[in-house]
Amino acid sequence: MKTPAYDSLASTYTRLYRLGHLQSIAGWDQASNMPPKGNEARSAAMAEMAALLHRMRTDPTLGEFLARAGQEPLDEAQRANLREIGRDWRRATALPEDLVQRRELATSRCEHAWRTQRPANDWPGFLQNFKPVLAIAREQAALLAGRSGLSRYDALMDHFEPGMTSARVDQIFGDVRGWLPGLIRQVRERQALNPAIDPVGPFPVERQRWLCEQVMRVLGFDFEAGRLDVSAHPFCGGVPEDVRMTTRFAADGFLGSLMGTVHETGHGRYEQNLPRELLGQPVAEPRSMALHESQSLSFEMQLGGHPGFAALLSPLLDQAFGAQPAFAPDNLHRLIIRVKPGLIRVDADEVTYPAHIILRYEIERPLIEGEIEPEDIPALWDAGMMELLGLDTRGNFTDGPLQDVHWPAGLLGYFPCYSLGAMYAAQWFAAIRRQTPDLDARIGAGDLAPAFAWLKDNIWTQASRWTTDELAVRASGETLNPAFFRAHLERRYLG
Amino acid sequence: MKTPAYDSLASTYTRLYRLGHLQSIAGWDQASNMPPKGNEARSAAMAEMAALLHRMRTDPTLGEFLARAGQEPLDEAQRANLREIGRDWRRATALPEDLVQRRELATSRCEHAWRTQRPANDWPGFLQNFKPVLAIAREQAALLAGRSGLSRYDALMDHFEPGMTSARVDQIFGDVRGWLPGLIRQVRERQALNPAIDPVGPFPVERQRWLCEQVMRVLGFDFEAGRLDVSAHPFCGGVPEDVRMTTRFAADGFLGSLMGTVHETGHGRYEQNLPRELLGQPVAEPRSMALHESQSLSFEMQLGGHPGFAALLSPLLDQAFGAQPAFAPDNLHRLIIRVKPGLIRVDADEVTYPAHIILRYEIERPLIEGEIEPEDIPALWDAGMMELLGLDTRGNFTDGPLQDVHWPAGLLGYFPCYSLGAMYAAQWFAAIRRQTPDLDARIGAGDLAPAFAWLKDNIWTQASRWTTDELAVRASGETLNPAFFRAHLERRYLG
Repeated sequence: MKTPAYDSLASTYTRLYRLGHLQSIAGWDQASNMPPKGNEARSAAMAEMAALLHRMRTDPTLGEFLARAGQEPLDEAQRANLREIGRDWRRATALPEDLVQRRELATSRCEHAWRTQRPANDWPGFLQNFKPVLAIAREQAALLAGRSGLSRYDALMDHFEPGMTSARVDQIFGDVRGWLPGLIRQVRERQALNPAIDPVGPFPVERQRWLCEQVMRVLGFDFEAGRLDVSAHPFCGGVPEDVRMTTRFAADGFLGSLMGTVHETGHGRYEQNLPRELLGQPVAEPRSMALHESQSLSFEMQLGGHPGFAALLSPLLDQAFGAQPAFAPDNLHRLIIRVKPGLIRVDADEVTYPAHIILRYEIERPLIEGEIEPEDIPALWDAGMMELLGLDTRGNFTDGPLQDVHWPAGLLGYFPCYSLGAMYAAQWFAAIRRQTPDLDARIGAGDLAPAFAWLKDNIWTQASRWTTDELAVRASGETLNPAFFRAHLERRYLG
Repeated sequence: MKTPAYDSLASTYTRLYRLGHLQSIAGWDQASNMPPKGNEARSAAMAEMAALLHRMRTDPTLGEFLARAGQEPLDEAQRANLREIGRDWRRATALPEDLVQRRELATSRCEHAWRTQRPANDWPGFLQNFKPVLAIAREQAALLAGRSGLSRYDALMDHFEPGMTSARVDQIFGDVRGWLPGLIRQVRERQALNPAIDPVGPFPVERQRWLCEQVMRVLGFDFEAGRLDVSAHPFCGGVPEDVRMTTRFAADGFLGSLMGTVHETGHGRYEQNLPRELLGQPVAEPRSMALHESQSLSFEMQLGGHPGFAALLSPLLDQAFGAQPAFAPDNLHRLIIRVKPGLIRVDADEVTYPAHIILRYEIERPLIEGEIEPEDIPALWDAGMMELLGLDTRGNFTDGPLQDVHWPAGLLGYFPCYSLGAMYAAQWFAAIRRQTPDLDARIGAGDLAPAFAWLKDNIWTQASRWTTDELAVRASGETLNPAFFRAHLERRYLG
């Protein structure tokens, strides 16, 4: 059967994928290697490339091919690919090339400056670079909203989480807001009765690096197809064939870096297990950012917070830093699942984590809708942290609204995906337990294989073949159901 | 004055420069970071980009703009830029896009495989990948020769060293062949009378890295605009705004890595001092590869072999590895200028170095002209090494024809530039001594500034504003004169 229009689209997307490969590697390099004076030229190069890719993706002939390919005799994977190409094309053609180029320049400059402004607690300096980033994000949101009929914020979120709306997020987060503060209180009271012993340093950076790499191996990361490096903000970048994970090390503690690495390893394995035969086509891309986060949180929270994981970790810690009472499996598990409201999202435990997300969502949604301005952020931040976690953050921008890379990088509409991901992860593990009733005993014995096999079959290799809802139903029998998350927390922390 | 055609060309070259930036960084990453399973996708990405850039550079409208810009009221720098754009355009349009793409794929694969084949002494394995690389290089040479009227080898060499011909190289190298073996013998007899004390290890890699970075600072490398990393074959890559130097460390000796770093720092400073206001345009590119090597060899040989450099180095070595008799300035200088025929080009002293180049030139020229085949290389290599340096290399491919990255990377026609560069470097230092008669006393006192100032004014910031001959005349009063090189060697080693 001949499918000339489809083939032509597929070959354009292969070219986009290959050029995007260079963009990804240069982006990773920018965050992990690049010296400061390289930034101006790098930003210009990234903007040039973004404009070029945008031009390729909005070529009017693609629209004709899309229409014609719909009439061709495609198989199921091809049809799914065509759906994803269409989605990409509709979003891309809504945005003029000069906006894409301006966005690239503004975010690249803002992110680069943020790397020194954050430690300097320089909120006014940050505002100067962030205002253009926000102005462009609003412009983009308005264009995408006009095309899709979604609200402005929803139009941005749709890029990361197709099909998700702020109405649904409001409902889910509203529910969490109702039970979370009480749960945090209960868990803290309970944990206070059985406190964990703190580990005693020093924790030399080189030993931490060794430890992180060992744990990545335990978690199945393929070092022949990826690396671990250091950056200001940990992320998982690169390309599926060459996954570039980053972490950051603190000399006074290893657990933050280690669990951050466990988190990124979940992202990394998703990327490393996307369907090879389809790589280069949109259908082979990760389904969505909530799905991506559901993998990092399956690793960090579902597996990482399991007593069996602490048992696996314990001898590695002895090897890395020398044995000490804090490294005993029971104590280690208590340390890992210790709930303590803190300022930093990426260091947060899984119970207080949703508070960080709700806070950000409740700022960035009205920010995009034009209901508030960047100058309003600190006051809202302070109020939200006090209300949700009882913490005073006034004047501390470093550990406040400057802590995340997302806003400087222009990733507005992303934050909800973290908590939606945590909810999906709980839903996946409920499904895994149905398939493997002795799952906990097996993890307890150090056997992570059943979990990995399920994730590989149901998530990683499925990539974007189905819509998110379809994938969730195929994998777990229903669409996103936040009840699994609450049940997971109550079982682990109050059970 | 309006110059629309010129402006249009300049803006195309700015775009090429920006996209080339990503290609350079990805190329550096490929050699210094990339895990093995990343190579297939990286090669495809690099080939896609090479084809894209080639398509941009051969756009027929550029030819029209070139013709019209020649009639526009351009200033001197613009006129020079137009000359360089024309040169680039004529070379690019001689090659079809599919050749460029095939070349990228073949060299990328060959170079990647070479990284493991070299240590494995796997000549037959290498041949398999090298044959397609050579076939494409020959095809390219034939096309360029047809366009330019040059011989095939000259047409390749012209890319690296515009205006240089194998007739001139034959004459220069023929002369060197006449006096070199005798000089090596004389120098070795003389040095045997006053042998150097060898340094005693260990030389921990982390201390070596510290040492290299200190020496780079002494030599004026700007770490805000560049880095030092590790790769199998040291090189200086990246972009002028972000120079990526590499070295390799051996635990049993530090001098090879250190002097290699001094060499690459010369390349690095050239790049870091290209004229900022013109960056992005061909006129701001380094003049030629012999000129580039004249900078690395000005650093490694002219400065690095000077007694004053040993005096600068001595306290740094004490700091790096602890004091020992070998690190005394006089002994250190004897170590640095010790002449000893060896198998490895990049480790060779400046007296035996030309022998390595003549050997390679006498193989790659007939290889490109189709007079010999890749299977003939080992026998020619063995014979040449025996004749020129008295060394038996039979069966040792690792330290023989597999030692350099140039052939696997498809860089045929490059090797002569090293020795031409050494000759230019000697010519520059003769000119610097005329301008600064107390140069040796100043270098002896640790003051390298006069040499750097001259190189900056006469070479680095001049970039491609003049042809190589014009630049040499402006800088030193005459075109390339190899007599300075011979005089330098006789003065330093027999004086």
